[in-house]
Amino acid sequence: MQTLTVATARRTQLLDVTAEVAAAVEDSDGALATLFVPHTTAGILLQAAGPGASAVATDVEAALERMVDEGWPWDHVHEGDRNPWSHVRTALTASSVSIPLNDGTLALGTHQAVFLAEFDGPRERTIHVVVSS
Amino acid sequence: MQTLTVATARRTQLLDVTAEVAAAVEDSDGALATLFVPHTTAGILLQAAGPGASAVATDVEAALERMVDEGWPWDHVHEGDRNPWSHVRTALTASSVSIPLNDGTLALGTHQAVFLAEFDGPRERTIHVVVSS
Amino acid sequence: MQTLTVATARRTQLLDVTAEVAAAVEDSDGALATLFVPHTTAGILLQAAGPGASAVATDVEAALERMVDEGWPWDHVHEGDRNPWSHVRTALTASSVSIPLNDGTLALGTHQAVFLAEFDGPRERTIHVVVSS
Repeated sequence: MQTLTVATARRTQLLDVTAEVAAAVEDSDGALATLFVPHTTAGILLQAAGPGASAVATDVEAALERMVDEGWPWDHVHEGDRNPWSHVRTALTASSVSIPLNDGTLALGTHQAVFLAEFDGPRERTIHVVVSS
Repeated sequence: MQTLTVATARRTQLLDVTAEVAAAVEDSDGALATLFVPHTTAGILLQAAGPGASAVATDVEAALERMVDEGWPWDHVHEGDRNPWSHVRTALTASSVSIPLNDGTLALGTHQAVFLAEFDGPRERTIHVVVSS
Repeated sequence: MQTLTVATARRTQLLDVTAEVAAAVEDSDGALATLFVPHTTAGILLQAAGPGASAVATDVEAALERMVDEGWPWDHVHEGDRNPWSHVRTALTASSVSIPLNDGTLALGTHQAVFLAEFDGPRERTIHVVVSS
């Protein structure tokens, strides 16, 4: 297992971590890279890369904020559950994703990039990377 | 593959199954544990553990019920599709998640626990556990 | 890694690909099949099989369209991000799922089938299949 550390800059942010993940697996001869986020208010997902990617990321961020509204009558917001919406948004993305490898290269689609999905930033966040044969 | 059986108590319920999953992998020397739920109205996800965890779970349950409303004009509710909302809520969580292992210990974050997400309980539910090297 | 190609027929469509995936793994002696979709507007998920399955699929399609509304005030729809809703719907499903194998057979539940989730069809779509030991 390798562990990557990245820093998010905003409260809700899709942060492109493709380069960091690609570097972590480049010397591997495994067939599958599994990424795991050990946080309860951040997830991992694949989204658009290249021109227009930041626009897509911004739209995904806004959509998740809209779908899970901070203004809802949350039951437990005053009982040690400071940000239930962050937890729900995390549940809607994923804590792990597995990506095939070809000779140490992530077998991503042409338009795919790997994003950490931050829902309670800014923070330093961790991604574990496990390569399987 | 090992198979765990757990019992849910409510219709919509995040059930903490961390102890059962941890016990299933504790004698393993693998690098990755994959959990798979063979049901169409239950999923698996990682959420908050420790003090306040039940409050977070309750808020996640309520949010998923709110986001996928039983009162929507479902097309097929009378045609053998008794509970379409349960299927949609399952689609929003996950059927599998993969967690790194360190010497037989789940490499969870400090605040993470593993939850079965029940959307049509109470029921007896199954979780398959596969350890990869 | 094996690569399957399937064709979707509608803009939003849950397409049952269980037979194609089952055929891809049937000669394998591995313990886990990981499916990966290298697209940013299509995902993969498990849903109901058998009688009533198409009704469930239709309800899931309609629910995802409803939850992520094309009529929202999307910021970037005119800036090279033609269909942000397709990307968000993809984020809500998954890009990978891992299914246990028993002697070359997918260890699916009685009522489970594997669906490609199309959010920008009709298109030809690709699914990568990696079997781990």
